[in-house]
This record gives sequence, structure tokens and C-alpha cells, in this order.
Amino acid sequence: MVYVLFFVFLAACVAAGSTGGLFPPGKWYEALNKPRWTPPDWVFPVAWGVLYLCIAAAAARVAMLPGAGLAMAFWALQVALNGLWTPVFFGLKRIRLGLVVVCTLWAVVAATMVLLYIQDPFAGLLFVPYLLWVTIASALNFAVMRLNPREAAGPAAA
Amino acid sequence: MVYVLFFVFLAACVAAGSTGGLFPPGKWYEALNKPRWTPPDWVFPVAWGVLYLCIAAAAARVAMLPGAGLAMAFWALQVALNGLWTPVFFGLKRIRLGLVVVCTLWAVVAATMVLLYIQDPFAGLLFVPYLLWVTIASALNFAVMRLNPREAAGPAAA
Repeated sequence: MVYVLFFVFLAACVAAGSTGGLFPPGKWYEALNKPRWTPPDWVFPVAWGVLYLCIAAAAARVAMLPGAGLAMAFWALQVALNGLWTPVFFGLKRIRLGLVVVCTLWAVVAATMVLLYIQDPFAGLLFVPYLLWVTIASALNFAVMRLNPREAAGPAAA
Repeated sequence: MVYVLFFVFLAACVAAGSTGGLFPPGKWYEALNKPRWTPPDWVFPVAWGVLYLCIAAAAARVAMLPGAGLAMAFWALQVALNGLWTPVFFGLKRIRLGLVVVCTLWAVVAATMVLLYIQDPFAGLLFVPYLLWVTIASALNFAVMRLNPREAAGPAAA
């Protein structure tokens, strides 16, 4: 059962993560000013691949435990928000709204991590790399907003 | 607790449904050939508003029941897919890929409905209007694909 659960949760992650392939960083992102510590483009899909395995494994460990309902509700909320950032940032080119999405995701991931930890400490620890990566993503979104005030002021024409 | 669960699940629905506001049907959709039975634009947000309340209520009823893990995993998968269709169809203008997404969503919603029903028949019934609406949405996506062969053949330039 835990394998079935793992693959269903992983499918949810893949559905959310598919926006990363559908709305790739194009010339618009390339031309933006970015901080010196910006990871190269290839790091993002690799990082998300590893993270999605951890995120799905954490949910699969906890899903069948008694009283896991709230942790599962927050897990569903984080996966819905996870798929939202890429269409907002790369699709709509809305840097400020992207920051709102990624900061909301950060708070929800932190809450999910605590709720998972209460059910099963190892599941909570599986969310630590995710929280760290969303921290980096939030900092990057913030830095891009500060370094490109004109682009951040108004959404580019679609 | 059931109210807290309801609002967290509803937040997940709102996150997925926000793509409907972010990628509204524009001139491109207006100009497409559509079947005579296409619902008017205003029906869609109203229908989704009611459906999201039912979808969140179904999850809140089931989340704390013992053995609800698989139903919760499929619930998370349907919410991740739910937010994907609008960016694909209205954002990328990819009609065929939209059909793949909405048909996958249909199958996942049907599976979630059965799993919810096993845990709590009323929760399963709360998913019936959702399945009916996704059936209509799939038929509409299919009809639009058939009625606009040129638009469906290749994605419009972004």
C-alpha cells in the first residue's frame, strides 16, 4: 500500500511540476538582472526531481496514520501552490505576484513540515530540503524584483 | 477540527482555481468555433465556486477517518491536475494538451469519488456534480478541438 500511496502522491507532484516544463524560462528571464548567487538553469529540474521524491515519500509514510488528516490537508495545499508559481512568474511574467505565491508556499511548506513531524519525525525531516529550496527560491524572486524595478512594476504584455 | 480541515482543503481548491482568474478566456477563445451548447462565460466561475465548496467538504468529512490515506492521495492528485488545465488551454493555447489534461482529471476525479464513497457515502456523492462538470468540460474541449482543426494542430505563438 505504501508504494501505491507513494506513486499517487508522486503523480500529484509531477502534475504540479509539469508547469516547469510547460512554462520554461525563456529570453525574458535570461535578460533579467539576477543576483550573482543565482543557480544555473539546469540545477532547478534536478533539485525539483529529488525534492518531489522526498515530498511524495513523506506523504506516503504519514497518509495511513490515525489523525493524519490535517497534515494531508496541508500537503494538498502545498502541492496546489507548488504548481502555481511557474505559470505566474514565467507565464504571466508577474514578478511581484510570483513573490506572493512563493512566500505563501514557504509558510504552507513550513506548516506541513511541522504537521508531518508530529505524525512521523522522519517524514518531517524529508520536508527540510524542500523548505530550504523554497527559501532560496523566495530570496531569488525577491532579488529579481529589486534588481528589475521596471519589469516588476507592471506585468509585461502577454 | 472539521471546519479547520474544510478551510485548508478549500484553500487548496482556491489555489488551483486561481489559475482561472489569472488566465482568463480572451480574444483567442472568443474567436474559436464553439458548439451551440457551450455554456456562457459567466457560468464557469459560478459552477467552480459551488463545486469547490463540495470538493472541500467531501475531503473534510473523510480526512480524519481511519484508512482514508488513499482517498486523500487521490484528492491531492485531482487538485494538482485541476489547476493545470487553465494555464495549458488559455495560457499556452494548446487545445490537444488541454484535452489530455481534462481527460486525466476526469479519470482521477472518478477514482477519488469511488474512494471517498467507500469511506463515507455522502462524501462520494459530493463529488458527483464535479464529475458531471468535468464530463461537460471534456466534451467542450473535444468539440473545440474538432471545430478548430488549424488552431488545434499547433500551439499559437506565445
